Amino acid sequence: MARRTGRRPGNPDTREAILAAARSAFAERGFDAASIRGIATAAGVDPALVHHYFGTKEDLFRATVDIPIDPAQLLPTVLGAGPDGAGERLVRAFLGVWDSPVGAAAVALLRSAVSNEWTARLMREFLVTQVLRRVLDHLDLDPAELPLRGSLVATQVIGLAMMRYVIRLEPVASADPETLVAAIGPTVQRYLTGDITGDLAG
Amino acid sequence: MARRTGRRPGNPDTREAILAAARSAFAERGFDAASIRGIATAAGVDPALVHHYFGTKEDLFRATVDIPIDPAQLLPTVLGAGPDGAGERLVRAFLGVWDSPVGAAAVALLRSAVSNEWTARLMREFLVTQVLRRVLDHLDLDPAELPLRGSLVATQVIGLAMMRYVIRLEPVASADPETLVAAIGPTVQRYLTGDITGDLAG
Repeated sequence: MARRTGRRPGNPDTREAILAAARSAFAERGFDAASIRGIATAAGVDPALVHHYFGTKEDLFRATVDIPIDPAQLLPTVLGAGPDGAGERLVRAFLGVWDSPVGAAAVALLRSAVSNEWTARLMREFLVTQVLRRVLDHLDLDPAELPLRGSLVATQVIGLAMMRYVIRLEPVASADPETLVAAIGPTVQRYLTGDITGDLAG
Repeated sequence: MARRTGRRPGNPDTREAILAAARSAFAERGFDAASIRGIATAAGVDPALVHHYFGTKEDLFRATVDIPIDPAQLLPTVLGAGPDGAGERLVRAFLGVWDSPVGAAAVALLRSAVSNEWTARLMREFLVTQVLRRVLDHLDLDPAELPLRGSLVATQVIGLAMMRYVIRLEPVASADPETLVAAIGPTVQRYLTGDITGDLAG
C-alpha cells in the first residue's frame, strides 16, 4: 500500500472523470458488482490508467467517498487480538479516527449521506464492504447472523458520531474518549459476539 | 391537552411570525431560558395570543420542530411500569412512532438537523428537554449520571433511526420491530440503569 503515497495525481480532468464514473458505479451497482473495467469505459480511459491513478478498487472507492483512512490497514490491528474486548478496541479506534483532523472528512460524508441519496448509497457500501465485512471476517461467528450484527454495530457507532460531532449533544460531545469506550464498548461487543435475540424478552 | 385539538389555527401571518420568533428563541437560548413573553415580544403580539394559538411552551416548541407527537403523553405509558424492561419498551415506542406516518416528520427533522446548525440546536433541545429529561425523571438514578445516561440513549436511538430510515442499511432497515427491540432494548436498558463505567475495562 506504500506505493499509494507516491502515486502521481495525474491529469485533473481525467482524475475527475474517473471519480465521477466511479461514484455512479459504486452507488448504482454497489462495491462488489462495480468493476474497474466498467468505470474506465464510462470515463473513457484505459483500465490501467485507473489503477495507475488510484490503485486498487478499494483505494478508488475510498477516493470517491473522500475518506483518507484505509479500514483494511486499521482494522486488523484492532481485531487481531481476538474477540475479547473487540467492542472496546473498535470504539477506541473509531474515536481515534473521528477525533483526529482526518475525522472532518468522515463527518462531512455523514452530513452529505443524510441529505443526498447518492451519498447515502456510497456510505452504505463503504460501511458494509470496507468496515463491517472486515470486522466480521475477523470474528468466528454464525454467518447467518453477520448482517444483523454488522448493522447493529453501525447503528451504535454512527449514532455516536451523530451525537458527538453533528448534533453535539452534551456530555457525549465533550466526553473523554475512554469514558465513551467504557460505556459503549460493551454494547458493540454484545452486537459482535453476544446474544442479540433477547431471550429475556420472551 | 384535549383543548389543543380544538384550537383555532389563527391568522397564518401571525402564526408564522410567532413560530419564527419561537425557533430563534429556542435555538439561541434553549428551551428552558426561552419564554412565551419574550417570544411574543419578538413576534409583536400579546403573550395571551401565543397561548391561544399554540398552548403551552412545550406545545409551541413541538410546533417549531414540526413534531406532532407529544413525548409527555407517550413516555409515561412507556416508563410507568418501572425500570425493568424500560429499555425494550422505549425502543418499541420509538419504532412505533418512527415507523408510523407521523415518523416522516421526525426523519425530516433528523435530516435537517444534520445540515443546519439551527435545526441541530432545536433537535438537541428537543431531545434533552422533551424526551431524555422525561425518561430519566421516571427512573430512580444518581442525578450526577443522568446527563451521560441520557445522551448515551440518544446515541443508540438516533443511530437506529439513521440506519433504518436515512442510510437504510440492511437488515436493520427492513427488520421486524421486535427483532430490533430484542437486540437494542438491552443496550438502552444498560444505558438507563446499568453499569456504564466499564469496570471490566480496568
